[in-house]
Amino acid sequence: MVKVAIIGATGYTGLELIRLAENHPYLNISLITSRDKAGKSLKEVFNWSGKYANLIFKEPVIEKITNEVELAFLCVPSGEAQQFAYAFLKKGIKVIDFSADFRFKNVQVYETTYNLKHAYPELCEEAVYGLTEIFREEIKKADLVANPGCYPTSVLLPLIPLIKNELIEKEPIIIDSKSGTSGAGRKSENYYSFCEVNEDFKAYKIAAHRHTPEIEEKLSLFAGKKIKSVFTPHLLPLNRGIFSTIYVKFKTKIEEIHKFLKEFYKESPFIEVVPLGEIPRIAEVKGTNLCKIGIFEDKKREWGIIVSVIDNLIKGASGQAIQNFNLMFGFPEDTGLPKTPLFV
Amino acid sequence: MVKVAIIGATGYTGLELIRLAENHPYLNISLITSRDKAGKSLKEVFNWSGKYANLIFKEPVIEKITNEVELAFLCVPSGEAQQFAYAFLKKGIKVIDFSADFRFKNVQVYETTYNLKHAYPELCEEAVYGLTEIFREEIKKADLVANPGCYPTSVLLPLIPLIKNELIEKEPIIIDSKSGTSGAGRKSENYYSFCEVNEDFKAYKIAAHRHTPEIEEKLSLFAGKKIKSVFTPHLLPLNRGIFSTIYVKFKTKIEEIHKFLKEFYKESPFIEVVPLGEIPRIAEVKGTNLCKIGIFEDKKREWGIIVSVIDNLIKGASGQAIQNFNLMFGFPEDTGLPKTPLFV
Amino acid sequence: MVKVAIIGATGYTGLELIRLAENHPYLNISLITSRDKAGKSLKEVFNWSGKYANLIFKEPVIEKITNEVELAFLCVPSGEAQQFAYAFLKKGIKVIDFSADFRFKNVQVYETTYNLKHAYPELCEEAVYGLTEIFREEIKKADLVANPGCYPTSVLLPLIPLIKNELIEKEPIIIDSKSGTSGAGRKSENYYSFCEVNEDFKAYKIAAHRHTPEIEEKLSLFAGKKIKSVFTPHLLPLNRGIFSTIYVKFKTKIEEIHKFLKEFYKESPFIEVVPLGEIPRIAEVKGTNLCKIGIFEDKKREWGIIVSVIDNLIKGASGQAIQNFNLMFGFPEDTGLPKTPLFV
Amino acid sequence: MVKVAIIGATGYTGLELIRLAENHPYLNISLITSRDKAGKSLKEVFNWSGKYANLIFKEPVIEKITNEVELAFLCVPSGEAQQFAYAFLKKGIKVIDFSADFRFKNVQVYETTYNLKHAYPELCEEAVYGLTEIFREEIKKADLVANPGCYPTSVLLPLIPLIKNELIEKEPIIIDSKSGTSGAGRKSENYYSFCEVNEDFKAYKIAAHRHTPEIEEKLSLFAGKKIKSVFTPHLLPLNRGIFSTIYVKFKTKIEEIHKFLKEFYKESPFIEVVPLGEIPRIAEVKGTNLCKIGIFEDKKREWGIIVSVIDNLIKGASGQAIQNFNLMFGFPEDTGLPKTPLFV
Repeated sequence: MVKVAIIGATGYTGLELIRLAENHPYLNISLITSRDKAGKSLKEVFNWSGKYANLIFKEPVIEKITNEVELAFLCVPSGEAQQFAYAFLKKGIKVIDFSADFRFKNVQVYETTYNLKHAYPELCEEAVYGLTEIFREEIKKADLVANPGCYPTSVLLPLIPLIKNELIEKEPIIIDSKSGTSGAGRKSENYYSFCEVNEDFKAYKIAAHRHTPEIEEKLSLFAGKKIKSVFTPHLLPLNRGIFSTIYVKFKTKIEEIHKFLKEFYKESPFIEVVPLGEIPRIAEVKGTNLCKIGIFEDKKREWGIIVSVIDNLIKGASGQAIQNFNLMFGFPEDTGLPKTPLFV
Repeated sequence: MVKVAIIGATGYTGLELIRLAENHPYLNISLITSRDKAGKSLKEVFNWSGKYANLIFKEPVIEKITNEVELAFLCVPSGEAQQFAYAFLKKGIKVIDFSADFRFKNVQVYETTYNLKHAYPELCEEAVYGLTEIFREEIKKADLVANPGCYPTSVLLPLIPLIKNELIEKEPIIIDSKSGTSGAGRKSENYYSFCEVNEDFKAYKIAAHRHTPEIEEKLSLFAGKKIKSVFTPHLLPLNRGIFSTIYVKFKTKIEEIHKFLKEFYKESPFIEVVPLGEIPRIAEVKGTNLCKIGIFEDKKREWGIIVSVIDNLIKGASGQAIQNFNLMFGFPEDTGLPKTPLFV
Repeated sequence: MVKVAIIGATGYTGLELIRLAENHPYLNISLITSRDKAGKSLKEVFNWSGKYANLIFKEPVIEKITNEVELAFLCVPSGEAQQFAYAFLKKGIKVIDFSADFRFKNVQVYETTYNLKHAYPELCEEAVYGLTEIFREEIKKADLVANPGCYPTSVLLPLIPLIKNELIEKEPIIIDSKSGTSGAGRKSENYYSFCEVNEDFKAYKIAAHRHTPEIEEKLSLFAGKKIKSVFTPHLLPLNRGIFSTIYVKFKTKIEEIHKFLKEFYKESPFIEVVPLGEIPRIAEVKGTNLCKIGIFEDKKREWGIIVSVIDNLIKGASGQAIQNFNLMFGFPEDTGLPKTPLFV
Repeated sequence: MVKVAIIGATGYTGLELIRLAENHPYLNISLITSRDKAGKSLKEVFNWSGKYANLIFKEPVIEKITNEVELAFLCVPSGEAQQFAYAFLKKGIKVIDFSADFRFKNVQVYETTYNLKHAYPELCEEAVYGLTEIFREEIKKADLVANPGCYPTSVLLPLIPLIKNELIEKEPIIIDSKSGTSGAGRKSENYYSFCEVNEDFKAYKIAAHRHTPEIEEKLSLFAGKKIKSVFTPHLLPLNRGIFSTIYVKFKTKIEEIHKFLKEFYKESPFIEVVPLGEIPRIAEVKGTNLCKIGIFEDKKREWGIIVSVIDNLIKGASGQAIQNFNLMFGFPEDTGLPKTPLFV
């Protein structure tokens, strides 16, 4: 049993982490924190019924961090996570950070994108980007893992192997992504109220979303040159799921691309490259840690189309974090993580 | 053309009033007010495209009320509406009030229920309860109409004729109502956020909703004795519509009750008593000023079941207000009001 | 490991059974059948990704039943299940039947309600009604369990203890239930198409639903007299969940009723009687085997109101079936069954 | 008053036509047909409450076509519409056809795309493509109007003026469209059942949708060369609305493009080019005949992004048909057509 802490456990990703952890045989949540809810139990705040119902939220006090846990999941905002990460690491406690604080190797891009100062740029160097299937070996040895953004997870899983192996052109890369509303977090704004989201569909932050530089830095790393990708996020009137439709130029036959990607991920229990002709859908990954990928081609128009779907709260956040936890502590990668969706 | 004002026009009922008014041949909105949005146009605030797009929100200043309008629709909270009503009436301007301020004849019940003091109890006496089909003649002559609550509208339209004519027992009356989320108004609370309402269903204010005393006062008036009714509201994961399932005891055969109610409403263009055996549904009234009523019986168990459906924003609010406006100014009752639903 | 068969595994309850079984440490599905899909795997038909992805659907041939399984879950229509049950039992194989075939002790009521002839009335006598918390001891020893209907589960769990112990009056009992659309099964009818259900809400089979006699037989059993209950089902525009609002007359103080029920279910891991004043909601049980019960009172109007929520596919079907399986094979009752909902 | 017929009036577009026609001062529906429902009224089949409630469906018998109407709206499948169009035109009756039968000038492309033989290729020559704002003058004089597909409407309205005036490159053109479920018509397939669409999102017919050749033929016409466009349709879990995100290369500054398009459509009452920086959304056009267009740029990545939203049943079908009707009979273009959305 590995004891862990969740710092900032009242948001959707923190709660999803607890929910998933209840099925994990070796992960034991011994500390959860919340500024607002300190002193109350999960039962009291969320009518929790599962295993951790009586766990009490504590104040998140950096000074009081002790060695009682072996790893901390940080579910606090970017900018704030840095301080916790530093403090935990100093105590010899491993960290998986859900914020953007350690996702960038180029600290300046982070600072510009998030309009924040980074207090520990040297930790960015040390941090491993937690896209499990791509950085598996590094994650096994990491003390600090930067859990990827939800959109980047859906986009990078199909693109990195293809771009690295020069099966697609380095540009153009056009990413049209659609996300369920839980991706925005637990909100109290009219913009996210039921009546304003239901029966509506909208794009947001066109050409200006913070996940674009994250996607570009990681693609560039594997392309060996600076990659530019157009990225448009949209808000779906449903709770969970990301669907990314990606337009690229194939450098070879679709059959080869499909075969290569299938081969590339054949040892990855959560990545499914679906048969040619089949289209993955959000319903097939909802509630799972899966990423399903479909490869298509518009032959006449000479474009490749890649479809990638995930559950934004699981593979796009808390599930991938547990997958990384498994690697960091030597457990089988898929320990405690669901593969069968709530098809309905 | 009758010039009107809408005081507090940025909520869902105010906007619905403007939307419906755009199809009304004799109603001209010449003033809309908003504290937050004063100085901006409907276009600027709501990307409005229709006829009133360039209408500018003004500050709602009671002192500046002039005779430039013949009627004011008050879409401000209970407690606040009183002041506006008094000021408009003093200037000789008619008032249709959406709040609860003038719905009660028993001012004490109002004060207890809404935890507010009433500054103009004498106006309560004068006010006509705007349940159009029931108080039609009084409304024609009224200067102050208290537009009914959305739930009471759905409940009273079937019950008042039946109770008055002693076709149902005076008790028990059990009302199980379900409302779309727009009934809660334009909200910025997590409780009403998309993720918290979507794929959920919940009851609220069980045995404690403010519409219970409103329903009871009106039923009592027609029953000639104090009526008690159990009322449970629920929140539906959809935008528009109220569905009330009402359990009563029939005093006569269902065929007679059905025939009586059909006859009672035969001159009412918006009330449809559906054929025996048919069940009305929200989709059939969405976007209309209709109230559809179905009469059922559990013979073996000796209970009558009455189903009533309306669009909460139209017959339950802004549509009924226009219907009342039509009567107050001598226009045909159904002028400008839709009867064909957005079936999809 | 107990080997089981699922007869008729392509409907929502069959698939939910497989999904839940994937987390069960002692339940091994070794046979699934389907007329339409025989010869194909779960992967091929449903893009299944979990543990049983490669399991192949077989033809359901009664004559070929062998002893290779210890229990069969029957997910076939009422009328058809009888034959399978008889055949399995004859081979010494235990049966949990999802249909209505063995739910009634009074075979005539079954035959009238379902308009079917019963070929094995003597098996009805032997069958145990699978409402786990109420018939726990009988289920442990049963060979044939009749899994309850989804609506009856939500209704009987709060009512049976109260009626048996004379804490509520034997009548009136008014049940206003609302169910998610998965309760109708996997449908290809326009009535259940997305556009016809979304943004709509409707009642159906008013005073004529087949679950009414099921509810009444079980209540009567515990009341010691014939109970009549009015039951109105409604269709919710969401996938999973049943919310039952039940109107009764309390015979004692609400505090005593609440205390009694809490005490009654204190050893039942899936029944939660929530604190007085709290209202359970579908979101809190979605994806779990929980039944949450709230007790309310309209003091002034002298009615008790009981709210009961379940996930219709889990506690209302496949989860309760596994709970019964656990009892029948001596495993802890909550083995493999989820308690933490997908809160979002 | 112009008398019209609707051939095939029981689908969503036929019904929407009747609904919209009820608000039209000069359009009088005197004939509606249906194979299945002949002999029954709108009231009987759809519980219709509006003006046309008592209109009776007739058998659609080509031989019996008389001159009692001046125009026929054809809402029958591609392939079948041809016969009706020919017969009506021969009688001197104008035709607006909702099918694809007359959308193509290149009959061979039609025959390949729809896998149908065209019986009246000469009529294709004569037919005017009913994209109102683009073919306004031709429509005024037309006897046969081919109402555009819903997706092409959303795509061509922004692209044609830009491509014709060489403000965007002729390629690449990448169209990522998302449609509400009513776009699929009134369905009885499990694929379109509530449980299979709700909480899901999926692409379909990737690189193979029939609207691609329609889009390409019209773009090519204005580009003066053969245009290729990649088109990916997706299914949204909502009833109404199309949202198209289009990726192109700008040939000039975004400000000029924006200004040009705004100018181009300044006399078009239903086209709104929204201010730079604003993003149109489906909620703003739901229930209206509007098309809202937003222009964006990813400067760093050198791509233009165009967003276009419509209500698929109105501007994408029945509303545009009425707009064309208005032109064909000399009424103001916006007669009877809504501009204010059901914002909620």
